[in-house]
Amino acid sequence: MRAAVMRDRAFTIEDRPMPVPGPGEVLLRTRLCGICGSDLHQFKHAREIDATARALGAPGQDLDKGMVLGHEYVGEVIAFGPETQGALAVGDRVVSVPFLIRDGAPVPIGANVEVDGAYAEYFLGTEALLLKIPDGVPDAAAALVEPLGIAVHAVAKSVLGEGDAPCAVLGCGPIGLAIIAVLKMRGVTNIVASDFSPKRRDLARQMGASEVVHPAERPVFEALGAAAGAIIFDCTGVRGVLSQTINTAPVGSQIVVAGIPQGEDSFNPMVAIAKELNLQFVLYYTPAEFAEALAAVAEGKIDWQPLVTGTVGLEGIGEAFTALEDPERHAKIMIDPWSDARL
Amino acid sequence: MRAAVMRDRAFTIEDRPMPVPGPGEVLLRTRLCGICGSDLHQFKHAREIDATARALGAPGQDLDKGMVLGHEYVGEVIAFGPETQGALAVGDRVVSVPFLIRDGAPVPIGANVEVDGAYAEYFLGTEALLLKIPDGVPDAAAALVEPLGIAVHAVAKSVLGEGDAPCAVLGCGPIGLAIIAVLKMRGVTNIVASDFSPKRRDLARQMGASEVVHPAERPVFEALGAAAGAIIFDCTGVRGVLSQTINTAPVGSQIVVAGIPQGEDSFNPMVAIAKELNLQFVLYYTPAEFAEALAAVAEGKIDWQPLVTGTVGLEGIGEAFTALEDPERHAKIMIDPWSDARL
Repeated sequence: MRAAVMRDRAFTIEDRPMPVPGPGEVLLRTRLCGICGSDLHQFKHAREIDATARALGAPGQDLDKGMVLGHEYVGEVIAFGPETQGALAVGDRVVSVPFLIRDGAPVPIGANVEVDGAYAEYFLGTEALLLKIPDGVPDAAAALVEPLGIAVHAVAKSVLGEGDAPCAVLGCGPIGLAIIAVLKMRGVTNIVASDFSPKRRDLARQMGASEVVHPAERPVFEALGAAAGAIIFDCTGVRGVLSQTINTAPVGSQIVVAGIPQGEDSFNPMVAIAKELNLQFVLYYTPAEFAEALAAVAEGKIDWQPLVTGTVGLEGIGEAFTALEDPERHAKIMIDPWSDARL
Repeated sequence: MRAAVMRDRAFTIEDRPMPVPGPGEVLLRTRLCGICGSDLHQFKHAREIDATARALGAPGQDLDKGMVLGHEYVGEVIAFGPETQGALAVGDRVVSVPFLIRDGAPVPIGANVEVDGAYAEYFLGTEALLLKIPDGVPDAAAALVEPLGIAVHAVAKSVLGEGDAPCAVLGCGPIGLAIIAVLKMRGVTNIVASDFSPKRRDLARQMGASEVVHPAERPVFEALGAAAGAIIFDCTGVRGVLSQTINTAPVGSQIVVAGIPQGEDSFNPMVAIAKELNLQFVLYYTPAEFAEALAAVAEGKIDWQPLVTGTVGLEGIGEAFTALEDPERHAKIMIDPWSDARL
């Protein structure tokens, strides 16, 4: 089968052996797979990420093997491995949290050199984690369940609860936009989004922001108009933004860090103390939050269409990664390995 | 009246005019006043703190005027200003959150050059904030209500709630020790305290730690034995500890930052994200938490005696500040402005 293999900041299309489902696993045909911001991050920083993991005592990985990314997938059931339950049928469309369960432990799909992701014609899933996509839900909507799950989780980890609160979303990439959509779904009325890009600000409005600002033109917390207790989602992934946010946030605010800055970052703890800030760092969802994202999409609670701005085949991935550097051009690009589409 | 005035890292005993209570204010005679870690911090870093405040847009202060510190006080009611209610009687002993209410706004007592604190024979309080100390509560216990209020607040701002959780307390200065006491009062069963000082580790055991470690000899989280979800109180006030704690904390832990490091600090956000850590910065208590600390002391729920290790008169403050640099010698030193005691 054909797969796009990432190695040293480049993709090559390679023939790889067809994956063979192990115990409890299912062979899936890739129908669609979104390009995630963390894929871009891996593309740029694979060696630093590996070095950080090693520094923390994790076993490193052999990056020369090449990595097949892709964890925002929609799969179609093709064949069952041993010890599967057969609760699904061949042809069913599925999504799942991007892990295989092997020897009882979760192994990430499409984020390391050991388990290939869905930047390929086929990939493997663990049957017990697969969720059947209801009929009528387009593949593109289902492929957004993963980033929407991140957003459901980020909002759930915040102090928002059942009520309303002034919310700021810094950075309107796909995660920022998904968080705006989830906040709107939760009934939040004051959502200020900030981004340097006019296109991203437009998308933020479409996803549900009540106000959008260019951060250099109008301070986001001035637009928010809250003297205290804001919930701020830092989705920029840019070093220095956290420190700046700590310095300018209203007292008693919570900063939910959902972007992934690379390298050391610094801030003045005295300022965070004086304001009694709370910082919540978030990474993944629970399976329940992932399922909630699927239900929200299936029930039409989230207007997902504006997020998807392009589709490419495997050969178009390199160009897509380059295009995603420019916020004016695209938000979420989908990969269809069975297509020869280019941007 | 005599007051100990701090100016350029030195104390001088000066004659100051007797304070005159304004509307709603009460003249108080200082019975006892604890030396707070934040006083030591002001002593060392007054100019940096002022520079930070100015950088954040606050009006700076004229440090050449000299500052009369002291906010962990026990006062005795001497006289009432205009517009007071007379709910208290002359001779009543009182504590309060260390603020005056002037023009409807809180003004800190003993932390700036405008409102003198209780490193003096007399000081002012706002009547509406004063809490009468029940008979039978020693002055030294009442003077600990303020730091115990900090501890009540720090624990209340944590995710502990009504349940039990593995708790680590890093740094066993007065705030760390007070937090240990409050955790014990809340029924926490696994409290690991760490400090380089044998004396501080002894005090931690006396205050209720279930285990104590020298952090260079045994990792605190190994002693804690929790794979996830610890609550960690960083009471060290030492730069770099936060980063180290982020790197070594169990996944899903909360770090409550109760110490006050000076200057910029740095950490790796990717590690905090990978572990989904929560950082809660804390400063002050609410009036209700302050009152809860007084009740806890009055009802004998906290064994406060080990905390108090010395008493000095105004002339002994300089020596006391020097002595407090050595964790082996003292924990909390009280000032009695009517005594000529030295260490």
